[in-house]
Order: sequence, then structure tokens, then C-alpha cells
Amino acid sequence: MKASIPNRILLPEEKVPAQWYNLRADMPEQPAPLLNPGTGEALKQEELYPIFCKELARQEMDVQTRYFDIPEEILAYYKTFRPSPLHRAYRLERELDTPAKIFFKFEGNNTSGSHKLNSAIAQAYYAKAEGLAGLTTETGAGQWGTALAMACAHFKIPLTVYMVKGSYNQKPYRRSIIQTFGAQIIASPSSTTNAGRGILEQNPETTGSLGCAISEAVEKAVTTEGHRYVLGSVLNQVLLHQSVIGLEAKAAMELADAYPDIIIGCAGGGSNLGGLIAPFMQDKLTGKANPRIIAAEPASCPSLTRGVYAYDFCDTAKVTPLAKMYTLGSGFIPGANHAGGLRYHGMSPILSKLYDDGRLEAVAFEQTNVFRAAALFSRAEGILPAPESSHAIRAAVDEALKCKESGEAKTILFGLTGTGYFDMGAYEQYLNGTMTDQIPTDAELQASFPQG
Amino acid sequence: MKASIPNRILLPEEKVPAQWYNLRADMPEQPAPLLNPGTGEALKQEELYPIFCKELARQEMDVQTRYFDIPEEILAYYKTFRPSPLHRAYRLERELDTPAKIFFKFEGNNTSGSHKLNSAIAQAYYAKAEGLAGLTTETGAGQWGTALAMACAHFKIPLTVYMVKGSYNQKPYRRSIIQTFGAQIIASPSSTTNAGRGILEQNPETTGSLGCAISEAVEKAVTTEGHRYVLGSVLNQVLLHQSVIGLEAKAAMELADAYPDIIIGCAGGGSNLGGLIAPFMQDKLTGKANPRIIAAEPASCPSLTRGVYAYDFCDTAKVTPLAKMYTLGSGFIPGANHAGGLRYHGMSPILSKLYDDGRLEAVAFEQTNVFRAAALFSRAEGILPAPESSHAIRAAVDEALKCKESGEAKTILFGLTGTGYFDMGAYEQYLNGTMTDQIPTDAELQASFPQG
Repeated sequence: MKASIPNRILLPEEKVPAQWYNLRADMPEQPAPLLNPGTGEALKQEELYPIFCKELARQEMDVQTRYFDIPEEILAYYKTFRPSPLHRAYRLERELDTPAKIFFKFEGNNTSGSHKLNSAIAQAYYAKAEGLAGLTTETGAGQWGTALAMACAHFKIPLTVYMVKGSYNQKPYRRSIIQTFGAQIIASPSSTTNAGRGILEQNPETTGSLGCAISEAVEKAVTTEGHRYVLGSVLNQVLLHQSVIGLEAKAAMELADAYPDIIIGCAGGGSNLGGLIAPFMQDKLTGKANPRIIAAEPASCPSLTRGVYAYDFCDTAKVTPLAKMYTLGSGFIPGANHAGGLRYHGMSPILSKLYDDGRLEAVAFEQTNVFRAAALFSRAEGILPAPESSHAIRAAVDEALKCKESGEAKTILFGLTGTGYFDMGAYEQYLNGTMTDQIPTDAELQASFPQG
Repeated sequence: MKASIPNRILLPEEKVPAQWYNLRADMPEQPAPLLNPGTGEALKQEELYPIFCKELARQEMDVQTRYFDIPEEILAYYKTFRPSPLHRAYRLERELDTPAKIFFKFEGNNTSGSHKLNSAIAQAYYAKAEGLAGLTTETGAGQWGTALAMACAHFKIPLTVYMVKGSYNQKPYRRSIIQTFGAQIIASPSSTTNAGRGILEQNPETTGSLGCAISEAVEKAVTTEGHRYVLGSVLNQVLLHQSVIGLEAKAAMELADAYPDIIIGCAGGGSNLGGLIAPFMQDKLTGKANPRIIAAEPASCPSLTRGVYAYDFCDTAKVTPLAKMYTLGSGFIPGANHAGGLRYHGMSPILSKLYDDGRLEAVAFEQTNVFRAAALFSRAEGILPAPESSHAIRAAVDEALKCKESGEAKTILFGLTGTGYFDMGAYEQYLNGTMTDQIPTDAELQASFPQG
């Protein structure tokens, strides 16, 4: 049996999913609706049109359509980098001396370096189809900005990226790659928007946050003719696009005659986790299987494990609709943490609902602990993981070590969302022992939780 | 027809070659033998044993065995990242408005970021099989050092990497990734060897060169118990291992019912070019086909286009055997050039012989011109190429533009050896207009050519 499963399970090209799977269609209870912050009423689809493309607004609101056909041009682009490989981590298993069978779905083998491209190309496609003049977005670690810059280069759509100032300064090479793909990049907070100017006035030295960059990107989109805003996580539409990860993973596991007992993904806004688990959660919701599903988040930004489930703004300057989600408060600015992509104050409303319903578990890790797993994994498997992805590695290693204790040969599947080539500064800190952990106190969290 | 060739042609896993192809077995005339610099006599295989593993010394000298079986453990490792994809560059073709059909073999989809892993894992395997205590090597741009560090981590062999000081300082993140995989890394020239101390005495401010780092790594290996030296290019054994690139490329082209009229590779020491062209050169030497074969080199280090075909040392301190090759002289130190992997003074003896026999052409490019092609390619194809690989892109684009002039629908295949994630400093210079070209004068070259 063991010998028959290769190290890398590659589906044939025709197995790239032709449809996205909409998990909401199988949820017995829906996530709470978005609210208009002015009226407190549930948001209507039309109210999203100034922000999002119409088709994306439709995808955002549609809780019934189970499968969405993937347009031809998106599918053709997917086929330049998908199916992504599913790996059996034999070498890691050996290193851990565990009876567990560890699989990981690797989304880092494209130039953007992560799964973000799955949604970026879809969102750019709809923007092109609607004849938009340009797009705006924000980026934290830079993976989403890179993916969207590639997608916009493909469809020749002008793009402005607001990059969290801390990352902008720490990662000049992320800037360069985004610029190489032709996008304009602005350090956030900036003086180009009211939101940015307001935040700078209050705190001129701030290194910014995702919430703040979102405020600027949204404002820029709604105040610029023919522009719309796009987001790389949190939203229902993004989880829909990312379902290709889970659909392929499940098909590849079937090829290997395996089904996961435990499924693990890192969780910032929830795009990867939501995509990876989608078809497995379907099995769980429909009673076909009952895998454990674990979200791995940073202890420095613990929205699921220490946040509250409440209506909150998706951004700092409160220009977005209100979403009911696990949140640390839209004003929460996490301590310096190199896992930039997981530094968001909130969590996907779909995942928040599932978590609140007890359908998924969550665990938080300090980053030094995460990098220990990353270093172990890289030497064993020959892949350099992104800090974000390494949260999932940490959780998978811990579960595999529990199997070693108990002697159980559980099947573990985790999502390896991307590569760490642009995070070597963090690896350097880890290697030379200067990396620190910054965990918010209870009092700090209480002070930032949404009021009311 | 066009629609039937996908963007990315992936061979099934079982098509990973089970044998390496030794081009020398089909060469009507052999490259000149290595010479012992002390005696001036042709080197015997045993004389290589203090430097190389025995099996690698055998592969180095064997001009008759046409196919070498790839050991099981190497093949298993290959299957974690091979077959590498062959891409049809439809989007680049459209951008250039050319009737040419452009294919590229992409070797960058592994963590080392380049084709270097193909030989690194083989050399580490033989070191392990012979029970060595450790390996030494040098690295310029860092691709080889990364690949070998990964391979040594896999087989748990201690590794010391001498990294050209210029790269060591310019690319701290390359250092970190090599260290993450557990290797020791030393900036060259260093005070850890006689060769290094001698070079530093003459020129304390030198930023080093590949030739100088080779001197140190070889000295360290031969003076340390149980250690051997490994090299990522130039050598016959390396070209042998890299033949997997060409074998897969040819098989994938056959799947697409295509055969190249023109084959292009970047050329530094020749490892990628030699591997890519191997089975096509076999066709050429045996009269089955007659493709044009083009080596693309940097104008700053033009060993084929402006060098001499002569016996020369492979390193700066003259500790290696003499090889007959196209060379700029073992003392040649190229001007600052970001295509670090192409900054070697010499060229593979096999390719040198083929070039001298008129079987391949060569062309040299200034790096600003190379980066123009890299930027164009990245936006069109969504892959960020390494500066080295971009020399091949430049040549392929030029050939495709000639096809546009002539209206010929030629089939072009080029080798995309790796990704540029660690070269964003160079991209930044290109984007902000501060990149310069440094071309040696005739007088400078004359002064550095080997004497006698």
C-alpha cells in the first residue's frame, strides 16, 4: 500500500475542476447577512455594486447555487498552474517516526507563490468582462498583491495596490515583483485617501494594518471612475473560488485510496482554509464522513481562539459593510509578526459560523514554535514553506506526534498554501535566535473588541 | 492543432527518465582530456579520487557508455519534483505577434528554484553511498548552493558552501535559505584556505569570483578527512545528470507532435544547455534532424563569443586539473553582473568542443537587454524568470521576432532554468533605470587569456 502512493500525486489536467463549489448551499444554517452600517439593515446585492463587480456581488450573496461553472478563460488560466500537486510527506513521517499518514496540498508552485492566484484570476476576469477601467486592492505579506498583479497583467487591467507599510518597508522585493507585473504600489496608510490621512493624523508613525489598507483601497475604488475593489480573503466569493483546492485535494486523495481523518489549514481571513475544507465539510454536513477540521492561527492575532463572534467592520476606517464574524475588533493592530498574511482582525463569516456551530476546531501558535516546524519540514520535504502555511505544518506535526504517542495511523491532510522566498528575513531571525513572540494581553483584546 | 496543445504539457510520472544520456558516446570526436597540470599528461581516473567520489569520477571519464541507469533513490527524489513542465508560450507569442511556436522547459518549480537540483541530488547520493563525512562546494548566484543544501539535507550529509563574496553580501536571503537547509556557508575568498588567504593578500577588497570559490572548496575537500568536492556545472558528470531536462523536453514535444527548429539555452558553465540539448544534439550528430542550437551568454562574461579555445585551469588559484575549453582565462573577474550563475570564466569541455566543431552557435547579450525580455516574459507568461534564464528568453524573443519579419512559423524551444525570487534587487535596478552594462574591452580580455 505505502509503496503504491507516490511522493507527489498529480491529477491529469482534465481534472482541474470545471465548477466551483459553494459550501453555503449545504449549510443547515446560513452565516448572518452583511449589514449596511448606516441603516443596520441586511445589505442588498445592489448595494455592493459600487464596490464589487456585479457577478462577484452575485457570488457574494448567493447561498443556494451549489456549483458555479468556471468561465472558459479562467479555466484556461488555471491550467497553466493547476492541478496543483498533492504530496505524501513520507520523509516528514520518517523524521517524526509517526504511524500517521501525512498528505499536503501544495499551492506554492506558481509565480505568485501561493493559492491567492485562484481567486485573483477570477476576480480580474470579471473586472475585464465588465469593462472596468481599473482595480484597487490591499496586500499584507504581499502574496495577494503579487497574485492580483499577475492576473491584471494577464487581462491588461490597471491595478493599484495598497501595501501595509510595515511589509512595504520590510519586503522591498515583494514591492519589486508587484511592480514587475506592472501594478502601482502605495504604502498604507498614505495621503492618497481620506481614510489614510485620518489614520496618519492620529498615528503618524503607524506601520499600518490590513484593516487600514482595506479602508484606503475601498475608498479609492468607490471614488475613481470605472474602478472596483477586490479582496483576497474573508469574502464568500473568495472561498467559492478557492474551493478548487479542496476539490482537487479530495480527487487526488481518492486516487491514493485515502480519506483524511484530520484536515488542517492556516487561517488569517480564511481563504485557504475555506477552500481546502469545502468538499470535506460538505461530507461532514451531509453525514457522509466526519473528519476533524482544524484552523491554525497565530497567537499574535487569535481571532478564532480569543476573539468574539459579533458584527464588526471589515476595515479600520469603517467604510465597509458590517460582517458577523469572529473578530478582535476592527481597530486591532497585531504586534510585529512575520506571518503577514494572517494578521487580519476578523475571519471569514462562513468559517466563523461553522466554528460557532462546532464544526471546526481552532488552535493558535506562537511564531517561534511555527518556525521550528517550518525548518523541520523544509529539511525533510525540500520545500521552503511560507510562515502562514507553517502554522498548518505546526498543527499537522503536533497531530502526527500525538499519533506516535497513541500508535494510531491517522490520515492527516494539510494545506501548504505557499512558499517563503520573500520571508527569508523572518527565517534569518529564527535561525539567529532573535525572533520573538508577541501575544496580546486579555486587557488589550478587551479594549479592542467591537462595542455594542 | 493549436487548440490541441495545452499551455502546460505535463508528462506522467512514469516518464521521468530512468537513465541519463551520455552525449559523449555519440560524439564523433571527443573533447580533449583533462590534464594533470604537474606532468602535462592526460589525467587518469584514479587521480580524480581525492577530489570526487569514485562513481562520479567514473562518470566524468566515461565517453562510451551511452546510457547510465539512474539509481532508485535518485529516481524517487526526482519524482518529488519531476517531470518538470513543458510550456507552450501562447501568451508570449500573442504579445510578439509572431507566427513562431515557442515552447519552454521550466525547471524552476522546485524549492532550489532551478535545474541545479537534478545534479545535486545525484552527487549527494553517491557521496552518501560511499560513506563520505562531508562535502564542499562553491556557489555564485546561490542556486547551486541551495540545491546542494537541499540534497545534503535529504541524505543528511554535512555541507560547506563557499559563496562568492559579492553574492554573499548582495543576497543575504540566499544565505538564509542555504542555512535553513542546514549547510555551513562561508564568504569567499576567506581565511579558511591557503587559496583564499593568497587571493585576499593580493586583493583584500575583492568581491570574489566563482573561480576563486572553487579553489577554496577544492582545497578544503582534499585537506579534510573523508570529504570530497562537488561542482554544479562545467563537468561532464553534471551534463550527464542534466540530460533529464532534454529527455523530458523531447518526450513532451513528441506528445505535442512538435520538434524544435531552434533550441536555446543560457550558458555559464553549460550545465543547463548541455542537459537541454543532449537528445537533440544526438539527433543532429546521428543525422536524424538538424535543429539550430544556440547558447545565450552575458556580454559581461562572453567565454564562447570572445574567449579562446585552450587548456586552462577551472579555478583561480590553479589547484584543479587543466581542461580544454572556451575560456576568458582563469584570472578573469567579470564586472558586476546580476546574472551571477553565468559569471564563470570557462565553459563545459563538451560544449566547447561542439562549439568549436560548428555544431552550436553562441550569442551574447547585455543585461539591460536581457531584463527587457525578462519583464516582457513575466507579464505575458506569469513566471518570474531568473536573470540567467532570461538570456535564453532574450534569444528566443529575438528569433521569434525574426520569424515575424520572415513570416516563418518556426518551432522554438528554450530552457527556462529557474526563477528570479532572489534576484529582485536586480529587477529593482532594471525598473528604476539604474542598471548598467559592463562589457570587457579587447585589451582586458587579451590580458586575462591563458598564456602558452
